[in-house]
Amino acid sequence: MNVLILGGDGYLGWPTSMRFASKGHRVTAVDNYLRRTLAEETQSEALISTPNLLERSAIFKAATGLDINVEIIDCTDACALNRVVQHCKPDVIIHYAEQPSGPYSMRGFNEAKKTFDNNLQTTFNVVWAVIQHAPQCHIVKLGTMGEYGTPNIDIEEGWLEIEHKGRKDTFLFPRQAGTLYHTTKVLDTDLLWFYVRTYGLRVTDLMQGPVYGLLTTESEQDDRLLPNFHYDDIFGTVLNRFLVQAVAGIPLTVYGSGGQTRGYLNIVDTLQCLELAAGNPVEPGKLRVLNQFTEQFSVNQLAERVAEAGNSLGLNVTVQSLPNPRKELESHYYNAAHQGLEQMGLKPHLLDKPTLVAMLKVIIKHRLKIDKSKILPRVSWR
Amino acid sequence: MNVLILGGDGYLGWPTSMRFASKGHRVTAVDNYLRRTLAEETQSEALISTPNLLERSAIFKAATGLDINVEIIDCTDACALNRVVQHCKPDVIIHYAEQPSGPYSMRGFNEAKKTFDNNLQTTFNVVWAVIQHAPQCHIVKLGTMGEYGTPNIDIEEGWLEIEHKGRKDTFLFPRQAGTLYHTTKVLDTDLLWFYVRTYGLRVTDLMQGPVYGLLTTESEQDDRLLPNFHYDDIFGTVLNRFLVQAVAGIPLTVYGSGGQTRGYLNIVDTLQCLELAAGNPVEPGKLRVLNQFTEQFSVNQLAERVAEAGNSLGLNVTVQSLPNPRKELESHYYNAAHQGLEQMGLKPHLLDKPTLVAMLKVIIKHRLKIDKSKILPRVSWR
Repeated sequence: MNVLILGGDGYLGWPTSMRFASKGHRVTAVDNYLRRTLAEETQSEALISTPNLLERSAIFKAATGLDINVEIIDCTDACALNRVVQHCKPDVIIHYAEQPSGPYSMRGFNEAKKTFDNNLQTTFNVVWAVIQHAPQCHIVKLGTMGEYGTPNIDIEEGWLEIEHKGRKDTFLFPRQAGTLYHTTKVLDTDLLWFYVRTYGLRVTDLMQGPVYGLLTTESEQDDRLLPNFHYDDIFGTVLNRFLVQAVAGIPLTVYGSGGQTRGYLNIVDTLQCLELAAGNPVEPGKLRVLNQFTEQFSVNQLAERVAEAGNSLGLNVTVQSLPNPRKELESHYYNAAHQGLEQMGLKPHLLDKPTLVAMLKVIIKHRLKIDKSKILPRVSWR
Repeated sequence: MNVLILGGDGYLGWPTSMRFASKGHRVTAVDNYLRRTLAEETQSEALISTPNLLERSAIFKAATGLDINVEIIDCTDACALNRVVQHCKPDVIIHYAEQPSGPYSMRGFNEAKKTFDNNLQTTFNVVWAVIQHAPQCHIVKLGTMGEYGTPNIDIEEGWLEIEHKGRKDTFLFPRQAGTLYHTTKVLDTDLLWFYVRTYGLRVTDLMQGPVYGLLTTESEQDDRLLPNFHYDDIFGTVLNRFLVQAVAGIPLTVYGSGGQTRGYLNIVDTLQCLELAAGNPVEPGKLRVLNQFTEQFSVNQLAERVAEAGNSLGLNVTVQSLPNPRKELESHYYNAAHQGLEQMGLKPHLLDKPTLVAMLKVIIKHRLKIDKSKILPRVSWR
């Protein structure tokens, strides 16, 4: 397949690019280094400094003999994106090209505007590049479980049949997210669903939970191929942050009472899910929504597991509660369906102690680079 | 009250500006003439040429002694909008400042992009101008009944309690619109609801049906104060188009089988609704949604009524079915709640024969200006 990966320099975009190239697909990875720029601006650099996308591609080529074509363009520039789509003729576009941080999007007007403009304009341009230059292309869009928020009913996979006053219809499952970043993904979904039903696009929306981990088959070949591992309060996901705190000898910081429950998955399962979604395209005029996570945990449960794994390595891990900087429920109902990807063949890698220990060992190798000042919450919207 | 009206030069914006000024409020009307520009670009000029906003304000002042302050700015320019909000200190912002045509938004990439950027960026900037400079201000946003589409269940006023697997929660009523224009309003609603619940904004979303009519108390004082009356396929609403066709002696053009049912209202009722919404602000942190129409009609029913009124004036009206240029259901269930505004005091002006005859008489005065080439559908997305 011709695979176009937008946001190919990202935490997931780069491992995805390597995976598809390793499986023999013709991969083009697109990025404009927005996340690198924002990480620098907010003093939220990743734990392990990573070569840029062109360098990564060259290192990967040296290690494997495989090509990853790189295009450094801004996807909010419709002409530039059109040119790449025309040239690449993708069978599938994997769309990660969004400002990915909730806290960043809640910092103030400038950050909100940058998030809003980048994410919406990119999605709009992807739709139109496909309409104009690759109408049969399957768009695989990374959504987020965060779009659903924490409703008081079971979360289904994207759709809900509603019976009301004796009549029935099926609608997108209600979405009400907790940050502007997550809200831009709600808007993305609305926009994609409009163009799917009106112009017959083919779209898979992967509603992903927070991802953890840094080791994948491809990144284990050369340390310089590791993903951008963020542990800061802005770009880091909760479990990655806890693991770094455990190694740094500082308490794991639980926001509020720690009952916030979400669905999580290992980065290696993200890669499986992307392969499954891309390998099984949907029909024209269909929006397929898949909830992409493998296990539900509360923040307290995550902290306990990290503490246990860390203590087994002699790290003496402690847990501390902080006033919650976020506006969110700390105790709520949460039960989300996630059968779709398992039915398609996903074999989950669960959050067991060996997995946590392996991650801790990688972080221990880089422990001198941990900057503790980046970990405590610097953005609040309570 | 200090009232800031965004899109104050529009079909509804200008009559609204006059109404609030007549009621003694301090009115600032903002526009950048986007609709005038697009109407010119698409050869869709209004029936009666209207003075520009500064001229209208001067004519209104001469006729009534009342001021309408005018600011010619582009609301997608956040700095400009912030400056106006800081200066005007509005108690209420009435937000009409959107590209308002469904067919225009479906013409191609450029028109879609202009619609998407204008409508989303303006709404985003309104939110932030209020957060930063007028946090107590009540935002009255013009939505559209078209956001709901034509679901197979009763349409409620904005919200729906859903029972699912024995548990309950209340969500925004599902929205799935038929054009990109209407979809931008769905996205607006999602965005406003996010900032309402996160930052405690006060928002009323008026889900308006297609409006008809051109006479209001204020416009009757001077023909130059009439609204921009569009009868073309792009900016004209269906009933206004039918009335002009009746006067021009050409068939009323029904798209497809004509069973498309919507809720309609008279422009004088739009003004009442705006007064009611602005005069009854919602509490901080509340999104009030009101369905703004007074009667439901199918397109065939509208055509029949116009034919009857036209024939009573000797116009010999005929009706013709055209292949539908739109992707929409032509026969569907439709039952939409609209009690909220009537409970607040709305006294509906229904679509009776005298109303239609009065409108026909105004159009007859301007019959020589009718350009028949603007009426048949020039945009299709079937």
